[in-house]
Amino acid sequence: MARRPILETELESLATGAWILGAGGGGDPYHALLNLRRLYRVGRSVSLMDPEDLDDDALVAVVSTMGAPLVGEERLTDPEVAALAVRQMEEHLGRRFDAVMSLEIGGSNAFQPLMVAAVTGLPVVDADTMGRAYPEAQHSSFAIGDLRPWPLTLADVRENAVVVARVASWKWMERISRKVCAEVGSIAATCKAPRTGREVKEWGILHTVTQAIGLGRAVLDARARKADPVAAVLEHAGGLLLFRGKVVDVARRATEGFLRGTARVEGLDADRGHAFRLDFQNEFTVGWFDEEARVTVPDIICVMDATTGEAIGTEALRYGQRVRVVALPAPALQQTPKGLEHVGPRAFGHDLDFRSVFDSTGGAER
Amino acid sequence: MARRPILETELESLATGAWILGAGGGGDPYHALLNLRRLYRVGRSVSLMDPEDLDDDALVAVVSTMGAPLVGEERLTDPEVAALAVRQMEEHLGRRFDAVMSLEIGGSNAFQPLMVAAVTGLPVVDADTMGRAYPEAQHSSFAIGDLRPWPLTLADVRENAVVVARVASWKWMERISRKVCAEVGSIAATCKAPRTGREVKEWGILHTVTQAIGLGRAVLDARARKADPVAAVLEHAGGLLLFRGKVVDVARRATEGFLRGTARVEGLDADRGHAFRLDFQNEFTVGWFDEEARVTVPDIICVMDATTGEAIGTEALRYGQRVRVVALPAPALQQTPKGLEHVGPRAFGHDLDFRSVFDSTGGAER
Repeated sequence: MARRPILETELESLATGAWILGAGGGGDPYHALLNLRRLYRVGRSVSLMDPEDLDDDALVAVVSTMGAPLVGEERLTDPEVAALAVRQMEEHLGRRFDAVMSLEIGGSNAFQPLMVAAVTGLPVVDADTMGRAYPEAQHSSFAIGDLRPWPLTLADVRENAVVVARVASWKWMERISRKVCAEVGSIAATCKAPRTGREVKEWGILHTVTQAIGLGRAVLDARARKADPVAAVLEHAGGLLLFRGKVVDVARRATEGFLRGTARVEGLDADRGHAFRLDFQNEFTVGWFDEEARVTVPDIICVMDATTGEAIGTEALRYGQRVRVVALPAPALQQTPKGLEHVGPRAFGHDLDFRSVFDSTGGAER
Repeated sequence: MARRPILETELESLATGAWILGAGGGGDPYHALLNLRRLYRVGRSVSLMDPEDLDDDALVAVVSTMGAPLVGEERLTDPEVAALAVRQMEEHLGRRFDAVMSLEIGGSNAFQPLMVAAVTGLPVVDADTMGRAYPEAQHSSFAIGDLRPWPLTLADVRENAVVVARVASWKWMERISRKVCAEVGSIAATCKAPRTGREVKEWGILHTVTQAIGLGRAVLDARARKADPVAAVLEHAGGLLLFRGKVVDVARRATEGFLRGTARVEGLDADRGHAFRLDFQNEFTVGWFDEEARVTVPDIICVMDATTGEAIGTEALRYGQRVRVVALPAPALQQTPKGLEHVGPRAFGHDLDFRSVFDSTGGAER
C-alpha cells in the first residue's frame, strides 16, 4: 500500500486498541478520540502510510504528549499545540518533515500524530517506538538502537517552546525534558529527535497503528455480538489470561512526574483463593501470583474490565472492579539483551530476570 | 574610541570593581579572574568596544553564568562552555554574532563575555543590562524595555544544551530556564535573547565595564597608598556610607535556586548602640537601620570589609566581620516607574516604596 485514509469509523477501534496496549499507562485516549472526531467533522482527514514506503532520507517527526496521565484528564491535548512542537522542530532544523509517527502506540499518544496530521496534512507512519506505552525516553526502540537522542522540542498551551538541542545521554534527555514538562504544568506536546526513513524502517516498531485498530475492532465486534471481549483480545493478539478477580486494594502516589504504586486483585472463579499483585510506574511493570513473580516487562501486562473488555489505566484502578489480567507478547527487539537493558524488569528497579510468559507453559495452562 | 584592548593589568581592577557592584551577589569573580589571566598568558586577548560604535543592526550576544553562587565556588566556569552557549545560539539563529556583552556587570558575570571573547575573538561591548547584579531574568534593562525575552540557550559541562525558543513572558523565561539550570547542577552557561546594536544602545546600561574597572582601580590605588579603600569607593562612585559595624548574626538558606536570608550588623564607632539589618535574595534588597527601612533596591547596597574595601558576598557573610555598609547610585532607568516595577522593593516581596538614599538628606548626614 502507498497511503490509505484512516476512516472516521476506525477511530474508536484505534482508541480501544491503543488503550489496551497502554498496559495501564499512556493515558485514556477518550478525549483524543473526541478531538479527532471533531477534526474529521470539520473536514480534516488523516492518511496512514506503510513505513516500508518511506524514502531512506525522508524526515519523520516523532511526537507525543509528555506528562502525568492524571493531568491529561484535565488539560486536554490541543492539536494546534501538538503541531507547534513539530513546527518548532522544523524551525530549529531549517527543514520540513515528510511524515509523522507516534512515540508510543499505547494510550492517548496513539492519537498524537493523527492530531498533528489533521493540522499539517502530513501522513502518519504506521509505526511507533514502543509497541505499547512506557514511561521514559530511554524506553523507546530508538534508544535501544542507540540513535541520537537529540534534539527534542516541547511546547505548552501558553506557547512556551523549548528545544533540548543536545544532551550527554538518553537519561539526560529524560531528566531535562521532564523538568521542563513539570514546570509548565506536567503536560506538554513534544517532538522527539527527528528520524530518517531508514532509521524508522530499521529501528521502529512497525505496523502498530494497524495492530491497534485491529485489536480494538476485535473488542468492539465481540461487544456487538455479545461475545466475551477479553477472549476476543486473547485470540486476536495471541495473549494469555493470567488472572480473574476483583480489585481489593490500590496504593498509588504521584511522584517525580510519575504515577507509582501497587494494586491487589483477589481471585474469583477459577482463581478463587489466590491473589495477584500488580506493580506499576505509569504502566504495569511486574505481576505477582500469590507473591511469586509471574509476569514482567517487557511482556505487555493489561488489566481489563471483565465484562466490557475496556482497558483500565493505573490512574483509574479502584476497589471492587471485576477484572481480567492478561499478557500480550512484546516486540522481539525488547526481548534482546540490549532491549532488556532498556525495558527489562531491572530498568524499573526490580531485581528479576525476564522470562516471557509466552516461553513457559504455566501461562497457557491457566 | 573604536576598540581598545583590555590590558591584563586591568583584570584585577575589573574583578574588584565588579564584586562591589555585585551588591552581595553575582558570585566572587576571583576564579573568573584566574581563568582570564590564564587565557591571557597563553596569548589570548580581549578588546572592549564602545556601545555607541555598534551598528544598529549588529547582533550582540548577552551572556551569563546562571545558577547558585555557592555552586559557582565549586564548579568553575569553563570558557569553552561559556562559548558553547553562544555557538548554540548562532546555530539556532543561523547567524553569527558581532559582539558579546554581559547580562550583569556585578560579580563574576562581568568576566563571562571576556571568556567568550577570549575563545571566539568577538569584541566585548562596554555595557550590561543591570549596572550591578540581580537574581532574575526580569530584572534586566531589556526586560524593563519590554524587549523580546526569547530565545535563550543554556549549556552545561556535559555539553547538554537547551534552547528556550519561545516563552509567554519574562517570568516564564525565568521559570523554565531556572528549572533546567537546577537539573544540570544549579550552574550553567547561558546566552540570553540576542540584541541588535540599536537595542543595546537604547536599553543597555552603558559603559559599565569601564565603570567597574575604574571603581576597582580606586580600591587598589587606595590600598597601595595605605588610604581608606571604602572612602575611595564612596568618592569615586558618589556613594554614601550607611553603617559601620560588626556582623553578629546571619540567617541564610538556599531555596528555589536562590540564597535568601538576613544579616545583622551591630554598630561600631559612630554607629555604636545602633543596629543594621540586611535582607537578601542573592543580592541585598533592603537595609534596616534600627528596624526602620533605610535603603532599598534599586539603590546598590554593598557590604565591604572595613579595612581592605573588599566586597563581601551574601554567601560569605559571617560572624565577626568588621564591615562598612554603603550605597551606590542606581542607573536612572531602574528608578523610573517602569523600572521600579521590575527592580523596586515590591519586586522582591517588600511592601515598601522606593526612596533613594541619594534623594534624602539623611544619608549625607550619617
